[in-house]
Formats: sequence, structure tokens, C-alpha cells
Amino acid sequence: MSYQLYYWTGLQGRGEFVRLCLEDAGAEYADVARIEGDDAIMPFLSGDREGALPFAPPFLKSGRLVIAQVANILQYLGPRHGLVPEGESKRLHAHQLELTVTDFVAEVHDTHHPVSNELYYEDQRDEAKKRAKDFREHRIPKFLGYFEKSLERGGGRFPLREHSYVDLSLFQIMAGLEYAFPKALAKQKVPLLRDLAKRVADRPNIAAYLASERRVPFNTNGIFRHYPELDD
Amino acid sequence: MSYQLYYWTGLQGRGEFVRLCLEDAGAEYADVARIEGDDAIMPFLSGDREGALPFAPPFLKSGRLVIAQVANILQYLGPRHGLVPEGESKRLHAHQLELTVTDFVAEVHDTHHPVSNELYYEDQRDEAKKRAKDFREHRIPKFLGYFEKSLERGGGRFPLREHSYVDLSLFQIMAGLEYAFPKALAKQKVPLLRDLAKRVADRPNIAAYLASERRVPFNTNGIFRHYPELDD
Repeated sequence: MSYQLYYWTGLQGRGEFVRLCLEDAGAEYADVARIEGDDAIMPFLSGDREGALPFAPPFLKSGRLVIAQVANILQYLGPRHGLVPEGESKRLHAHQLELTVTDFVAEVHDTHHPVSNELYYEDQRDEAKKRAKDFREHRIPKFLGYFEKSLERGGGRFPLREHSYVDLSLFQIMAGLEYAFPKALAKQKVPLLRDLAKRVADRPNIAAYLASERRVPFNTNGIFRHYPELDD
Repeated sequence: MSYQLYYWTGLQGRGEFVRLCLEDAGAEYADVARIEGDDAIMPFLSGDREGALPFAPPFLKSGRLVIAQVANILQYLGPRHGLVPEGESKRLHAHQLELTVTDFVAEVHDTHHPVSNELYYEDQRDEAKKRAKDFREHRIPKFLGYFEKSLERGGGRFPLREHSYVDLSLFQIMAGLEYAFPKALAKQKVPLLRDLAKRVADRPNIAAYLASERRVPFNTNGIFRHYPELDD
């Protein structure tokens, strides 16, 4: 099965959660906008293509299916590539964790855009400083604490007792925080999460991907942005 | 099958999306915190109960399963109560729409809490005014336009060509906006959405629910809050 992934070029963004899943699975896929340019995304957003209408990228084409929303895509890919345990209860649990990752990612985004997506960061920096302070003091500990506890309950190594797409997303969160909020992250007591992130980075397909040019470096176009004044 | 729903008392909040689904289905359920008080929620959040750990309410207990995250709960309930069409493609589409509802609800919340959940609205009113302006001018049209277009593509009456849990959530969004942002809502050209919301309100189980005391009125503890200065 070959997939077509559609996501903006030049940043990791939300597309990266899907990419990590495809790469770990060793799935064949085309990263369409990187080949054809961002314009390839537009006809889907404007409704000129068949299939479910995406609100925004990333979306994945799999045969005739158009699947949008990161957690929805991962839920689709998981069982096809052995990236989620069997059974309804485990799959509901995996998806519940992934939706909490989604919530966290939205909050990360809003640290640098607390007022409007239509404005530059520089035009909402004062509000961003306030929001980032709250994010560092309350939200990072709350979310990472939750994931740490989920790991604990899963036996320490995997929140779902075996490898799954959730691990890949938790790795990305830890990598993103390390880039964007290194000082705040250093203060968190989350040994199980840190260990999980290392083990994911060492998985052969992920290690090869991270070393490749397909992994765009973190930068200040993405969701995880490093502005020193927001980490202080 | 009898369910136990756990959600904070005194507000509709995110729990309401689940309640609408249970009510429309005529499912037996106990709204546990309304019977036992909010304290009944705590042992689940602190990890003192079996099953998947919820990050936050609402969560649903169904037998031994603990299911959190609204879209995850609806995805679980949908097929059990004829509230989602058959087939993988339709179910992925339903869930994609529901996850976009989730994103919208988070943005509604942030219009009155753009800085921090730890602060009162009154302590972040200036930032709220800026964020709400952006929300009215850009986000409401973008999200409602997307749902309107999805309805159009579904034939005009249902985004999924037949009744589903997504309709119930879209009704709740229209009802919430009517309460919180009546002026901004009046400006939107979304005839299909308005018609859908009316038809949902007229469904016998929903009409009975809306007329009952189980439907807590909208208020300024919930997600949809009416502060006149944010709608001007």
C-alpha cells in the first residue's frame, strides 16, 4: 500500500506525527507537497477533489480515501502496520492518549499565537509571554505528568504495554519541547518519558529517518518554536 | 447497556456533547456527579480506579471500560446506537468532522481564557477582547463555512447523508454560539447549518431533553459564555 501525505513544506508541524508513523512502519509514501509544491494541497481544501473534505493539512490519501486530523490518520494507520495493540479496549486507550497529544500540541501552538493566526508572533509577543508563562508553570507539568503516569500504569516502558503510534507522538512532543522550551523541560521529573523518547529515537527506522534530509529541522515556522523570551 | 457519565456539575461544557448523544439514542445512563457530587470524578483522575486514565472529564464508564475524550466517546457510542453510518470510509469521515468540532470548542474556550485557566476571565479581559475579535472575524467564518460546505457535499441535510452523532455536535455548536456570540452568529451565511440545528432540536428525544431539567442552561461557567464585550 502506498500513501500520499499532504502537508505544508518547510516545517515539521502536525504532519510530523504522521510522518513518524509512516517512517517507523517502513510504509511507502509520497510527501506530495515536497515534490509538487504547496499548491498541490489547495484543490483538496477548496473541495475540488472527491472524498472527505479536510479542514486543514495534514491529510492522507489512501486509495480513494482522504483522511484528515492527525489522530484520525494514526488510528487508521495503526492497525494496518502493527502500531497499536489488538482489542477494542487498547485501541480506545491509544486513541484517548493520542487525542490528549492533540490537545497539548494546540496549546503549544498558542504559546506563540495566543491572539490570532493572522498576526505575526512579533505582534502578539506581550500576550505570548503571559501565555507561555502559564504553559511552562501549569500546562507542561500537567500534560507530561499525565503521560508519565500513563507510562507508569502501562508497566514503565510503553503506555500501552507494547510499542504503538502513541510512543512516536510522545517522542515528538519531547523532541519539540527540548527545542522550544529547553529550560522548562529540564525542570520536569519525567524519567519514564525521557527513557521512552530515547528508545524511540533508537528504533532503526526512526534513527534512519532522523538522520535523513526528510526530517526538516525544528524552526520558527512550526508548532514548536524557540523564542528565548518564552522559556525564561 | 447502562452507562455512567462523569462530568462536572453546573455547566454544559464538553460533557454536553456526550449527553446529547446518549439522550438522542435513548440510552440508559447515570450522570454520576449530578447524583454523587463532583468528588466522584476525582479517584479516576488521580489513578485510583482501573481502566484508562482520563486526562480530564468527560469520561464514560461502559462496563469495565473507561473512555475519555469526547470524540473518542462518540466514536464508541455511534455504532452501538445507530448514530453513525456503516463502513470505514463514513466512520473516518464522521470522526474527522467530530475532531474539527473538538478543535472549534477549544478555540471557543480560549476566547474567554486566552492567557490561563488559572486566572479569572476578569483578569484576562483585555487579551480576551483581542482574541474574541479574531475569533469572530476569522475563526467563526472559517469553521462554520467548513461545516456548511460539508453539509452541501453531503446533499444538504446531513454531512454524512444520514443522521449521525456529528449532527448532534453541530447543533450544540450553533446553540452555543447563539448564546455566546449572537451578533457574530447573525452575520454568518450558513442556511444548511441553521436548518440542521432546527431539525436536531425537533427530534423527539432531543426536544424532550432540551425541555427537561437535565439540560443545564448555558452560563458563564461553561465553554460557551456570553460576555457582551466579546461579541461587539
